[in-house]
Amino acid sequence: MTNLYDLFSPTDFRYLAGDAAFQQRLMPYLSEAASIRYQLKVEKALVDAYANNGICSRAIAAEVGQACNSIVAEEVYQEEQRIKHNIRALVNCIKKRVGAEAQRFVHLGITSADVLDTANSMRYRDFCKDVLVPDLLKLERGLGEMAQRYADLPQIGRTHGKHAEPITLGFWVASFVSRLGKRIEKIVESACQLRGKMSGAVGCYNAMSIALPVDPRQIEDEVLRSLALPTHETGEIVNTQIVESESLVDLAYAATSAFSVLANLSDDIRHLHRTEIGELQERYAEEHVGSSTMPHKRNPRNFENIKSLWKAFVPRILTCLMDQVSEHQRDLTNSASSRYITELLGMLDYAVERMRSAVANLEVDERKVRQNLAMSKGQTVAEPLYIILAMHGVHDAYDRARLLSRGNNGQQNVLEAALTDPELRPILNKIPPDKQRALADPEKYTGLGEEIARAALDYWGVRLLALCRQKWPDNAKAFDSILS
Amino acid sequence: MTNLYDLFSPTDFRYLAGDAAFQQRLMPYLSEAASIRYQLKVEKALVDAYANNGICSRAIAAEVGQACNSIVAEEVYQEEQRIKHNIRALVNCIKKRVGAEAQRFVHLGITSADVLDTANSMRYRDFCKDVLVPDLLKLERGLGEMAQRYADLPQIGRTHGKHAEPITLGFWVASFVSRLGKRIEKIVESACQLRGKMSGAVGCYNAMSIALPVDPRQIEDEVLRSLALPTHETGEIVNTQIVESESLVDLAYAATSAFSVLANLSDDIRHLHRTEIGELQERYAEEHVGSSTMPHKRNPRNFENIKSLWKAFVPRILTCLMDQVSEHQRDLTNSASSRYITELLGMLDYAVERMRSAVANLEVDERKVRQNLAMSKGQTVAEPLYIILAMHGVHDAYDRARLLSRGNNGQQNVLEAALTDPELRPILNKIPPDKQRALADPEKYTGLGEEIARAALDYWGVRLLALCRQKWPDNAKAFDSILS
Amino acid sequence: MTNLYDLFSPTDFRYLAGDAAFQQRLMPYLSEAASIRYQLKVEKALVDAYANNGICSRAIAAEVGQACNSIVAEEVYQEEQRIKHNIRALVNCIKKRVGAEAQRFVHLGITSADVLDTANSMRYRDFCKDVLVPDLLKLERGLGEMAQRYADLPQIGRTHGKHAEPITLGFWVASFVSRLGKRIEKIVESACQLRGKMSGAVGCYNAMSIALPVDPRQIEDEVLRSLALPTHETGEIVNTQIVESESLVDLAYAATSAFSVLANLSDDIRHLHRTEIGELQERYAEEHVGSSTMPHKRNPRNFENIKSLWKAFVPRILTCLMDQVSEHQRDLTNSASSRYITELLGMLDYAVERMRSAVANLEVDERKVRQNLAMSKGQTVAEPLYIILAMHGVHDAYDRARLLSRGNNGQQNVLEAALTDPELRPILNKIPPDKQRALADPEKYTGLGEEIARAALDYWGVRLLALCRQKWPDNAKAFDSILS
Amino acid sequence: MTNLYDLFSPTDFRYLAGDAAFQQRLMPYLSEAASIRYQLKVEKALVDAYANNGICSRAIAAEVGQACNSIVAEEVYQEEQRIKHNIRALVNCIKKRVGAEAQRFVHLGITSADVLDTANSMRYRDFCKDVLVPDLLKLERGLGEMAQRYADLPQIGRTHGKHAEPITLGFWVASFVSRLGKRIEKIVESACQLRGKMSGAVGCYNAMSIALPVDPRQIEDEVLRSLALPTHETGEIVNTQIVESESLVDLAYAATSAFSVLANLSDDIRHLHRTEIGELQERYAEEHVGSSTMPHKRNPRNFENIKSLWKAFVPRILTCLMDQVSEHQRDLTNSASSRYITELLGMLDYAVERMRSAVANLEVDERKVRQNLAMSKGQTVAEPLYIILAMHGVHDAYDRARLLSRGNNGQQNVLEAALTDPELRPILNKIPPDKQRALADPEKYTGLGEEIARAALDYWGVRLLALCRQKWPDNAKAFDSILS
Repeated sequence: MTNLYDLFSPTDFRYLAGDAAFQQRLMPYLSEAASIRYQLKVEKALVDAYANNGICSRAIAAEVGQACNSIVAEEVYQEEQRIKHNIRALVNCIKKRVGAEAQRFVHLGITSADVLDTANSMRYRDFCKDVLVPDLLKLERGLGEMAQRYADLPQIGRTHGKHAEPITLGFWVASFVSRLGKRIEKIVESACQLRGKMSGAVGCYNAMSIALPVDPRQIEDEVLRSLALPTHETGEIVNTQIVESESLVDLAYAATSAFSVLANLSDDIRHLHRTEIGELQERYAEEHVGSSTMPHKRNPRNFENIKSLWKAFVPRILTCLMDQVSEHQRDLTNSASSRYITELLGMLDYAVERMRSAVANLEVDERKVRQNLAMSKGQTVAEPLYIILAMHGVHDAYDRARLLSRGNNGQQNVLEAALTDPELRPILNKIPPDKQRALADPEKYTGLGEEIARAALDYWGVRLLALCRQKWPDNAKAFDSILS
Repeated sequence: MTNLYDLFSPTDFRYLAGDAAFQQRLMPYLSEAASIRYQLKVEKALVDAYANNGICSRAIAAEVGQACNSIVAEEVYQEEQRIKHNIRALVNCIKKRVGAEAQRFVHLGITSADVLDTANSMRYRDFCKDVLVPDLLKLERGLGEMAQRYADLPQIGRTHGKHAEPITLGFWVASFVSRLGKRIEKIVESACQLRGKMSGAVGCYNAMSIALPVDPRQIEDEVLRSLALPTHETGEIVNTQIVESESLVDLAYAATSAFSVLANLSDDIRHLHRTEIGELQERYAEEHVGSSTMPHKRNPRNFENIKSLWKAFVPRILTCLMDQVSEHQRDLTNSASSRYITELLGMLDYAVERMRSAVANLEVDERKVRQNLAMSKGQTVAEPLYIILAMHGVHDAYDRARLLSRGNNGQQNVLEAALTDPELRPILNKIPPDKQRALADPEKYTGLGEEIARAALDYWGVRLLALCRQKWPDNAKAFDSILS
Repeated sequence: MTNLYDLFSPTDFRYLAGDAAFQQRLMPYLSEAASIRYQLKVEKALVDAYANNGICSRAIAAEVGQACNSIVAEEVYQEEQRIKHNIRALVNCIKKRVGAEAQRFVHLGITSADVLDTANSMRYRDFCKDVLVPDLLKLERGLGEMAQRYADLPQIGRTHGKHAEPITLGFWVASFVSRLGKRIEKIVESACQLRGKMSGAVGCYNAMSIALPVDPRQIEDEVLRSLALPTHETGEIVNTQIVESESLVDLAYAATSAFSVLANLSDDIRHLHRTEIGELQERYAEEHVGSSTMPHKRNPRNFENIKSLWKAFVPRILTCLMDQVSEHQRDLTNSASSRYITELLGMLDYAVERMRSAVANLEVDERKVRQNLAMSKGQTVAEPLYIILAMHGVHDAYDRARLLSRGNNGQQNVLEAALTDPELRPILNKIPPDKQRALADPEKYTGLGEEIARAALDYWGVRLLALCRQKWPDNAKAFDSILS
Repeated sequence: MTNLYDLFSPTDFRYLAGDAAFQQRLMPYLSEAASIRYQLKVEKALVDAYANNGICSRAIAAEVGQACNSIVAEEVYQEEQRIKHNIRALVNCIKKRVGAEAQRFVHLGITSADVLDTANSMRYRDFCKDVLVPDLLKLERGLGEMAQRYADLPQIGRTHGKHAEPITLGFWVASFVSRLGKRIEKIVESACQLRGKMSGAVGCYNAMSIALPVDPRQIEDEVLRSLALPTHETGEIVNTQIVESESLVDLAYAATSAFSVLANLSDDIRHLHRTEIGELQERYAEEHVGSSTMPHKRNPRNFENIKSLWKAFVPRILTCLMDQVSEHQRDLTNSASSRYITELLGMLDYAVERMRSAVANLEVDERKVRQNLAMSKGQTVAEPLYIILAMHGVHDAYDRARLLSRGNNGQQNVLEAALTDPELRPILNKIPPDKQRALADPEKYTGLGEEIARAALDYWGVRLLALCRQKWPDNAKAFDSILS
């Protein structure tokens, strides 16, 4: 037991373990205790497979299984303290609990990495299945609903931070529904590709080959199948002492690039929250404080937090890419570094959940949204004007519009200026009423914005639900409850 | 024209442009001239689609097409110098070459990013299809053949840099066949996901919606189909001014993680090339110099080069991940940075090709391979010994073997020591002859090493050929010639 | 000779070599030709030192010196093509030009890395001295003058993107004068720490020890002194085959963190350039185009470019940090990667120079600056109000001000509301007139902003000029002309 | 209170908090509780300065001081839970403990960042002074003594992993003494540059200017001086809401590049620990286990751990470099990310201490060292041979030696071959006996290796002790006890 504030990682004292609800949700997968529990599942699965193949008795398998169920992390860490080897410590703990006959079959023919890599693949996969992907789907749904709610609220589109042409606020949100949707797919697919192995110290099944009367890959596949991990049938992969390192790096990449989508959404909201723009605002409870000296401040604190965490976690993908390099059949310089992947997964989940609740707590100031759109009305009309002129035969329409827009130091109303042009006026007078309206009112010049915004959740909801249900039928009910 | 040695990027003066053969192969895709050529293809495809939909005449499309065929990079750069906008410069160059009527339809309704992103997706895809993937397949084949050639050459497996248990040299190579195979798949899939767009300045099809009598997505799909890029049918993606940034980042990641596999292979070879280990050696021509002061040096220079390039290029994935963040409908801070992706792709290809030729030029010193294996014979027997003892009822077999291996400061022959143990000797005398042999001779204790080595190329050759043929049937002949 | 647009690195075809003025300025230091020229200077300096110590004749030194002056890059690259070793190729080129007697002394007793590392340290140092630091000083001066020009222009300070309390525009600029000033110091100091060596193949002076009648460190110091590099007297450094790698990494870090300061300034300007904020604006020439479809756009293109280049270059510091690791007396996996440092230095200079000219071309819209400040007047008063109340005995002043600022959904004028409070009104009526003014007018509540803004250039100009003059007296005139 | 194994960061459950001794040493500086304690010191120092300047009474300062001494982290976190602002929560906790009169002066005129940044600078500085630098000095001493112990043990120098020319083992270690020495200097200097501030919400001293009858910089300097942080006299720095971000980044860089030196040493030792090389070996206690399946394994586990941690922590410098960018007077996206710097500092210290004890536990197998040197004797003689021949008038000595070394597929004894050459033999027979010996015995051809090895600790010990004593006289005794 330790005091939370005597710790050193913000991940623990502030974000994940500092928040009881988070700690509870993540502990079964990402805590060190969970890590050891999953290792015990692997050791148990091996002896079960031995029993199924007549290599040991079912009684022995049951005895080992029971031992595995009763071991806790502290015990293993204490034994490791003595012998300086984590998995041998685990094995010793099991052996202490079983009879001499059973002892022989514990960990027989495999190596530490067989247990470690297999256990990690399982727990990261389960974490994605049970926690991260459901949380991502909830965020996806929240964003999708927001896209629908504001599907027809005209907003000025911005490029280079400057007013460009109108969109709708829902369309803006829809672009994140789409990008996040794609990232969720990547995460699901990478999680399902996480692999285990039972091929021994150098990957050649040396020990099992000599110990067992059966093809060791049969035992391996049986263990992997019982743990719901990919088997040989799903692809001929050659492992060394460790699982092919790309298996985990792909998930880390998928998580990292999903984090970047959150960072982008955070930045957008931070800027729409600016005093001068004021289109969005976090709701503050009565007692919340924005600044210790400026009593009036209300800041986009959640979005700042998510962007900041992104800066903390995005460079860590390089650790994973460096860990792809392991000399010969393995060099163990990925041992400490790969432990930190739990943090990346846990903190992504934290950011996802914080984004979901912060988005739900966001006020849209529709009046301000329309006001901002209106302020550049005289300028943003330059595009539809040039298009309409070009369609009506003006071959240098673009350059004419450009020059009109430069008048009065860029403050001139382009449409009004065009209407005073003796050459353009007659053309403009002739164009059909619906196009006249698009020129007169930027709120009408939003193209397919509304339609795209309305469609996003329908499309991605169906697509993601189908994928998750197919890959992880055992969690189908949870997926259903989120998306339908 | 410029002198090669007046340049500043090693990519140019030393690696890609400094090598005429490389320059020729990469220029059609990755040079700046190629970039502009692909942009012209996009502008042409748009007007073609307009003609197909009766928006302009076929004659105009032909006129624009001809103009696009005749423009060169210098011209565009000169115009950009004047107006400070690259794509408007391109458009001006086209317009200068066509009549007033045709001028109206050039670039009509689209924005710079429509042209740029679509052109880049095309050229990166074509580069993968025509150059990078074929080169990767050649390397894959070279490695696969090496795996087969040395499938049964017993080699000591190494973990922690220490002798572990025997493998075969072919098995070691096979692990790279497998890892590289998976990366090639990732590259093919990412390249096929690269996307284009024709949705205008903020992604809402504002201009086209007002200009055209048809649904603008119909025009967009027609353009994309003609350029062999994914259309709406393949997935509802919402673009803003730019293509969803993940499309390109996924390819950059696939390329980077493939680079890491090369780096790992380089490191392995560098270490097997060490004086004390000496299992592998680069062939040196008579006139080659290894050191400017040590006349006797023969160094693994190609593998050092590849590892070094990996260090130069792997951190650049962070640029791509940062470029995922673009404020609102786009902020343009990815404009300069994303230009550098050509270098990543080109230099990966350089490393692949250098690896292929260096591997082909590698000598295996079989005598030394066997000698190294033999040197730890008395120690590596500890694993099979413990396994066999455990199988024959010794419940603390592991710890007994561990203690035997510590004798004489780790120099004791474990098997001989076991045979002098009054408790173990009778057991050892009873074990069947084949297991006796595995104890006596580490060359016999290689598990499934040979089998795995033999299977690797067959498996991956078939799998990769099928994938490449399916995705890129127009290049099927090239793929066939490499893999079958 | 090669066509610029047949190249692959944007550094070459677009930024450095694509701009003739830049190419001319950088070529003497950062081009590949320069690299070889500097190597020849080192080879020459060695033979000079031999002559000075009577090891060879002065005639031989002159002969070698003349040879070194006449060799060009192409020649060396051709010889390298044949023998596959760059420095031996250089040596061969020299030897071909001198008589048999002189040949013996060329490169005698040293190794390639002695030449390479020493030459690189020299050319990077010279580049800093002659180009980068002068350019940084020009930017520093430009910023310092801007700080003075707008020293008293009140501007709203922004934290979290929200209006906080007033500053002056000059104060904002002054913070960059200060930060950049510190970075310039770091660059100067790191450049002066760049080291050379003459200690041979493994750093023990093996060859020289056997060849020479004098202490080899005497020769080394003489060579280094003649090249104006640090000698043994400045600190006992142990080199291996290569110069202690930290020497170069420190400069790379200084350059990278200076780049980050530019990135921050770019971001600030980009946001102040936003349509809604509009305090700053890049001047556009008549013919400049902002967007290919939106004729009215005027974008902060230079600042976007600088930010984007930062994203391309900041991750490269990891390459340098990885290059610190070199096995044993050297492993050569830093050979290719360290070549790219020329790009980092060159592109930083590009960004510096682009920032300088872009800042000079920036318009400040003073009316808009004051208008933005005024818009939050009723809210930003909360801080001075709470301070004044606290000074006048209100112990819960902060919380009172906080609650007042929440009135009318954060739209209430805090001062007016306070004046209607029966408890606060009498206090407020009693406060002295100057504090009344600070409450009534945010333009008066700018603290020491103006004073700090006025002082920045004076302080940093003197400090930097003194440093540069002391370290590099040979370039004092240039420094003087910039800063005084 | 929480269970250690329910945590998520390896930094906590495994490395720092998982090791009671480490937790105790780091807690006073790097734990979250320490963070809050240091913040309280800052709040206290402010009121003390107010009292010293007659702004409040000494009794009030004492009252506030007492309150600050009694607050614990839990309390502050609970209040933060309620009001969602960490520093305002701290202020509320203080205010609750003091009377109404004193309440007015708590935190008066400053902003959260004044407290946070100042507190962090102090605790990181103290951590460097009291823990990290002393630990680094102990490692430096350990390495220096090892360099002296093996100053004259001849060892083969290795470049490209190949035998190059002889060094001494002590010389190899000395190169790390030198590199680490330089890094320690950097860390000390950066720690002493860490800055605090008291300039309020936007850096203009707005609030203090209005509240105080004195120049606010006088108060600020007094606070900083009392906390032993740099004041205005040490350099005119302009802060915004936050301390100039470079102050902390420079320390992070110094720490990161020191980590890289450890990584390099780890790699060297890992390779010298290889079975085939076997020059170094970690001592294993009787009960230690090297592998869960290979009873004979003895691995360089500590050095693998250090290298692995380097991979986990070196990319984090990018977080710091990204945090240099903060929009306007601050954007708060560095809030979460900069919290993680405690981990970087703590884990560097962990790696330093682990390296120290692992180096102390390292066995040098002198027999094997000499044996490895001898094995290339016939080849490494090529360098001294060519040098001697060149000195004796053979102008193409290098190429002759190179060709001799290629004989018999690189297995030929170069010296013997030279002696059979009718042209070279007479020359060789004439050379003086000491040079004959260097040719005959590589152990004699170690240049200045021994001398450099002996000098390293003397030089660096004196230099570092002087620096540390000068900068941090209050810890002089500790420095003395380590280095003299």
